[in-house]
Amino acid sequence: MLEALKQKVLMANQELQRKELVIYTWGNVSGIDREKNLVVIKPSGVAYEDLTPGDMVVLDLDGNIVEGSLRPSSDTPTHLELYRHFETIGGVVHTHSMWATVWAQACQGIPCRGTTHADYFYGEIPCTRCLTREEVEENYELNTGKVIVERFRGLDYRDVPAALVAEHGPFTWGKDPHEAVHNSVVLEYVAQMALRTRQLAGHDRPISRHVLDKHYLRKHGPDAYYGQR
Amino acid sequence: MLEALKQKVLMANQELQRKELVIYTWGNVSGIDREKNLVVIKPSGVAYEDLTPGDMVVLDLDGNIVEGSLRPSSDTPTHLELYRHFETIGGVVHTHSMWATVWAQACQGIPCRGTTHADYFYGEIPCTRCLTREEVEENYELNTGKVIVERFRGLDYRDVPAALVAEHGPFTWGKDPHEAVHNSVVLEYVAQMALRTRQLAGHDRPISRHVLDKHYLRKHGPDAYYGQR
Amino acid sequence: MLEALKQKVLMANQELQRKELVIYTWGNVSGIDREKNLVVIKPSGVAYEDLTPGDMVVLDLDGNIVEGSLRPSSDTPTHLELYRHFETIGGVVHTHSMWATVWAQACQGIPCRGTTHADYFYGEIPCTRCLTREEVEENYELNTGKVIVERFRGLDYRDVPAALVAEHGPFTWGKDPHEAVHNSVVLEYVAQMALRTRQLAGHDRPISRHVLDKHYLRKHGPDAYYGQR
Amino acid sequence: MLEALKQKVLMANQELQRKELVIYTWGNVSGIDREKNLVVIKPSGVAYEDLTPGDMVVLDLDGNIVEGSLRPSSDTPTHLELYRHFETIGGVVHTHSMWATVWAQACQGIPCRGTTHADYFYGEIPCTRCLTREEVEENYELNTGKVIVERFRGLDYRDVPAALVAEHGPFTWGKDPHEAVHNSVVLEYVAQMALRTRQLAGHDRPISRHVLDKHYLRKHGPDAYYGQR
Repeated sequence: MLEALKQKVLMANQELQRKELVIYTWGNVSGIDREKNLVVIKPSGVAYEDLTPGDMVVLDLDGNIVEGSLRPSSDTPTHLELYRHFETIGGVVHTHSMWATVWAQACQGIPCRGTTHADYFYGEIPCTRCLTREEVEENYELNTGKVIVERFRGLDYRDVPAALVAEHGPFTWGKDPHEAVHNSVVLEYVAQMALRTRQLAGHDRPISRHVLDKHYLRKHGPDAYYGQR
Repeated sequence: MLEALKQKVLMANQELQRKELVIYTWGNVSGIDREKNLVVIKPSGVAYEDLTPGDMVVLDLDGNIVEGSLRPSSDTPTHLELYRHFETIGGVVHTHSMWATVWAQACQGIPCRGTTHADYFYGEIPCTRCLTREEVEENYELNTGKVIVERFRGLDYRDVPAALVAEHGPFTWGKDPHEAVHNSVVLEYVAQMALRTRQLAGHDRPISRHVLDKHYLRKHGPDAYYGQR
Repeated sequence: MLEALKQKVLMANQELQRKELVIYTWGNVSGIDREKNLVVIKPSGVAYEDLTPGDMVVLDLDGNIVEGSLRPSSDTPTHLELYRHFETIGGVVHTHSMWATVWAQACQGIPCRGTTHADYFYGEIPCTRCLTREEVEENYELNTGKVIVERFRGLDYRDVPAALVAEHGPFTWGKDPHEAVHNSVVLEYVAQMALRTRQLAGHDRPISRHVLDKHYLRKHGPDAYYGQR
Repeated sequence: MLEALKQKVLMANQELQRKELVIYTWGNVSGIDREKNLVVIKPSGVAYEDLTPGDMVVLDLDGNIVEGSLRPSSDTPTHLELYRHFETIGGVVHTHSMWATVWAQACQGIPCRGTTHADYFYGEIPCTRCLTREEVEENYELNTGKVIVERFRGLDYRDVPAALVAEHGPFTWGKDPHEAVHNSVVLEYVAQMALRTRQLAGHDRPISRHVLDKHYLRKHGPDAYYGQR
């Protein structure tokens, strides 16, 4: 079942490696079929180069395995929580990519310092609060998803398709697994530039509001004019 | 028309990728035929590896499309403004290359700290002022060109073939598209060294004037003696 | 003798180069056969690409050469000391990898700042004290091993399979040569992130204890649930 | 004439590119035949990939061209000055490699922070004073050599085969062109580590004297025991 989606999720997982966002088995991509409400995700701890479409695990949104003989990624409950609350997303990515993880380890959101960031993320990329001892011990991976959702109260997840989990690392999403990986690549790039910009400028003043609006809206929404029709 | 120039512009765009100045579609190169006053530029949002010479867009200096079925780069009005005012240049490049963009995001020009910089840029690489809300809303890309031109009042664009646009990123130019890309590569290299030099030295004191003169003038102008005759 | 182990040690040495942990001949891997109490190690100063299984040197735990016509790595006495005291390890690695060496040169242990670190190292990666003049002059390489063992008094070498030797560089270990190299790769990654995290956060506060416990123990020990059964 | 040396110098120049010490034509290697007192050097401004042995220029120690139809590197007078004063060296390298150049631009020598440095350089890698206006205008490249020689008064050029020229970049040397390039690679590596070590440690305290002695002397001199006999 879901052979086309399995193929997409496989390719998106391998793209993580080609884009140098992961070493070993340090990241996972999932995709969802919104009609069937089924999620396809990488199996846990399997090397990207060894993955086949048949290794992908299919689950329903409650976490029941519908197909697949391997264990799903240990981060699966986080992915499912994001699919349940961010209702239009089609793909989710988790990595420990270097620069985004540094911001997560510092427990700081990434301010929007320039148009590169503004082309993809409509403002700061937020960092969650730390999980409490109870949240960690009770259901760590589910609660990781919950603190992301909590952090997006008052924010539109479609405008900022990325979050940093404090002390841990980044999650990104998109309309499909491929776009979610694309957003992970951009997140890594802007995370690196933002850290160096702070070091150079000595402050965290974000980009002018009107430049942020201009760049985000020339690529997104009804008045976008970047790219081909 | 302009088949040779289209080929040059295509190759210069692809060179951006080989030199790791761009990811995805994050940069564009144009070239001009000064006799016909026609500009050839990359189409907007098309992957470098998919580009063919026939995809290049030909425009006059007022921005009218003379040939091509694709939309030109959204930054085209900036390129045209530079061609109109910097009368001897033959190629323009825009990227979001990491280190030059960090300086642009910090809204600071890059001081000349050593001979590597002095071999190509005769002094500081200037950063523009931020665009006002009105400038952004009225005609963003044209006004981006205008603040570059404004910043070069009193400077010779031939001596410093690069500018940083505040909150945005670098533009470079040269006698042809190939040289403009070469200057982008060097800009990126000196931007990285200048940031680290500041961190190490703890100050921004520029190179001695006589060393700057020596290095720039041994490679440029009538008394140059670098390279082969 | 020990042909299979020689092949493993050879491949692990060459893996150092592929993972960019070494340039020239700047690192060495050894492995031990715990039944025969014999150690196989790289010869000193031989390029990785020139190594053959027959070049590997076999020694007993007292340092007597049992087989091999080449001199063993000059760091051999350090490896042997680790095998004598860390009784379950099967492989040892020494490199001068960039980021771990920077922490060693600063004579500082690497605090655990996030889950990437916690997945592999159960707390700070310790740095030894500096060797005294007498220790250096008397038996430098042996005493290098001794200060590592000394530093692990009160620590379990199985929980933190890495040490930094002050003013020098990292040593890692594992159940076999391959795992020891894997730990060197991870050490290098977390060393780089920890330095940048300090620069960004402005402090060295380690990860929450409950997150450290959770991540280490979901990958290690009887309750681990990462990966496939 | 000197065909074997031309081949060595050619290969050493191309090695600069493979080791990522240069972009474009930003570095040059020379070699000397001490019996004939003739120097072979790269021609100025020619791409490494286009070089042939016949392009190499042969000069005597007074700078007279003995063979070759191309202009020699513009830095030739610096190389010659080093050959005249450092009487046992057989090869000289000049680059603008990133990290060594940053130290040169900051006008600071590179302190010996660890054993990686100590394995190759017996103490600090010195930085010259800045050239005066008169020195620059009169004979820039020759005087560049002179300030290096001046800086080594009281130092043994065999113990520290590298110098930084203030506001400019590094020169290295060795018993032949190949070793001089090897030293450039190591210089770049230790320059990067030393800058990061200062940032991490917050001070510039050099390695303990006894560890410096141990590491340098286990690889150099009559009591060396690193490598094969």
